[in-house]
Amino acid sequence: MEQSKVINFNRGVPASETLPTQKIAESCVAILKEDGKTILQYYSAQGYSPLRELLAEQVGHHTSKDQILLGNGSLQILNIITNVLLKPGDTVLVESPTYDRAITTFSRRGVEVIGIPLEENGPDLAAFRKLVQETSPKLFYTIPDFHNPTGITTTEGKRKKILAIAEENDINVVENTLYRALRYYGNDKPSFFDLNQEIVVHISSFSKILSPGLRVGWVAANSNVMNELSKYAEDTYITSNLVSQGIIYKLMIESWLEENIEYLKKLYKPRLNAVIRSIEEYLPDVDYSKPNGGFFVGIWFPKGVDIKEVSRKAKASGVILSESSGFFPDHQPGGFLRIPFCAVTKEEIEEGIKKLSKIYQTCKRS
Amino acid sequence: MEQSKVINFNRGVPASETLPTQKIAESCVAILKEDGKTILQYYSAQGYSPLRELLAEQVGHHTSKDQILLGNGSLQILNIITNVLLKPGDTVLVESPTYDRAITTFSRRGVEVIGIPLEENGPDLAAFRKLVQETSPKLFYTIPDFHNPTGITTTEGKRKKILAIAEENDINVVENTLYRALRYYGNDKPSFFDLNQEIVVHISSFSKILSPGLRVGWVAANSNVMNELSKYAEDTYITSNLVSQGIIYKLMIESWLEENIEYLKKLYKPRLNAVIRSIEEYLPDVDYSKPNGGFFVGIWFPKGVDIKEVSRKAKASGVILSESSGFFPDHQPGGFLRIPFCAVTKEEIEEGIKKLSKIYQTCKRS
Repeated sequence: MEQSKVINFNRGVPASETLPTQKIAESCVAILKEDGKTILQYYSAQGYSPLRELLAEQVGHHTSKDQILLGNGSLQILNIITNVLLKPGDTVLVESPTYDRAITTFSRRGVEVIGIPLEENGPDLAAFRKLVQETSPKLFYTIPDFHNPTGITTTEGKRKKILAIAEENDINVVENTLYRALRYYGNDKPSFFDLNQEIVVHISSFSKILSPGLRVGWVAANSNVMNELSKYAEDTYITSNLVSQGIIYKLMIESWLEENIEYLKKLYKPRLNAVIRSIEEYLPDVDYSKPNGGFFVGIWFPKGVDIKEVSRKAKASGVILSESSGFFPDHQPGGFLRIPFCAVTKEEIEEGIKKLSKIYQTCKRS
Repeated sequence: MEQSKVINFNRGVPASETLPTQKIAESCVAILKEDGKTILQYYSAQGYSPLRELLAEQVGHHTSKDQILLGNGSLQILNIITNVLLKPGDTVLVESPTYDRAITTFSRRGVEVIGIPLEENGPDLAAFRKLVQETSPKLFYTIPDFHNPTGITTTEGKRKKILAIAEENDINVVENTLYRALRYYGNDKPSFFDLNQEIVVHISSFSKILSPGLRVGWVAANSNVMNELSKYAEDTYITSNLVSQGIIYKLMIESWLEENIEYLKKLYKPRLNAVIRSIEEYLPDVDYSKPNGGFFVGIWFPKGVDIKEVSRKAKASGVILSESSGFFPDHQPGGFLRIPFCAVTKEEIEEGIKKLSKIYQTCKRS
């Protein structure tokens, strides 16, 4: 094997060159000057009030800042929701595949996690209906926009039908909207929260549109749920990460964050295009998603291809892939592979997919 | 009632004037320049490696940086420890009184919390021995230096005896050392971790010696326990608060934090003296602790004084007191009152205790 740079198709991280060190430093200086004595002291567990006000406004539907909780990234928020809304022995439905750490979070709580097959326009409704009847789930967890790990977006029609079933059966819908702002094609669909503010818990984060290291995720929920989430947060860590929250407040109030999102879209869209082009050229006989945004393209190799073998051989030729089985509640990934494209260049994408193509040929069953 | 400023004897918060907004802003600028692309990206859940290295060195006893976990304040760390080391139905022993939020954390986990009476030189050893035999506890939680809420410090002799009993009975000792660095009189005692690095889990934080809003606490533990704590942290929030951790790293490496601790001691020591002087002058017939450091003085009113009545009347005359019953696992505070003295001036202390004295006279049972 020739000596070459490793190509990372494994983690959903933002491109390092986009992390705005200088701007965040300026913003930190500004907020500490403006409100330092508040930022550096104990505070409410719900998080920095001026930022919650901006987010409540952004969410719309007369959401108040008291319906917003800021936490240490979206996963911590999901962990709080899990501890508050679920008990050991409860059942949750998720898309299959879904975000691997969400499965871990539910499982740690002693909750049974059941997967709904994901179609190219969202969850399989017949399977959803059937599993709602059979398992009486407490909660449905969904990533409706540019889904992790597949890149799929659920249509407006399916969102409405899911909500109707959930409402009828007294099920909370928790939507993870981490990638929603990064749309490269087409128009926004209404979020689940746009369609129903009573049963929907709406999670978002600044990790993908600004910086993961700042550790700021947030959630909007109805007042009853929010009271419980806040109490749990206070009991667990008293005050959340105010310095980061203050920094983000400054970036939002100056509309700098909006500009940053436009910059990210311009950078990431050609990378998405490069994945699609490379798949069409080098992997013409696989199924794949055609996302309109986000971080990921999903590939489905034909039946009989062992994704673990692909992964092993890819690693040996310098291409690091995501571990596929973690995305599936039943740990049966079939031929599924996630390609995260934001933190790799167009050249790396093309070279990586070309290498994958060669490996795939050696893994095909005849 | 005359119009006057409210005197806050309720929360254990640092004095607002000590929060170093300017210095923290400078430190943030410096670390983002130096290591910004790391600080703003995803990272290990254990926290910023250069800071862990400094803390490992400070802890001594050949502790490695891999035995240190940084988290969102010491309470979050205790919550992780609770989830990793304890199961519902387990028993923990604590000092009675103890930190109220520790009791809440254990109780949320479904753990039974039993109090060991606290004497002026530490936990009552006879009671400790007896309860160890009777309840087979998994863990003893202690605040050995300038205890919250009493200000009491456990003697070296008692620490050694507690460890001997704990070792013999396979009990983990979790020590909360939040106030340890703020010693105004006398010499440091060896920490529990100094005496035993195998069964002791050592918690500390920057909330009292720098800033609570930065949200950085930390824990040192043996490698087996640490592996479980780190895995739990990763499963719960992936990456901890790197910006704050980077800021603190800069303040430590420049030895600025040491200077800050000296400054805090100079500010807080006269406030402690003012509490003691005022108690001796205005409350000559109550018991009280004589702390050598920390944030709190404990007062024990004579039997028959209803502390809730004292609290109610104090509030009406503009003195806000801590809620006492929360510090006791059995919620029976007797005549106990915590006086936090760091965030009040000498004048407020004198006026507050004088007012308390008048109220106390009306609450005495004859």
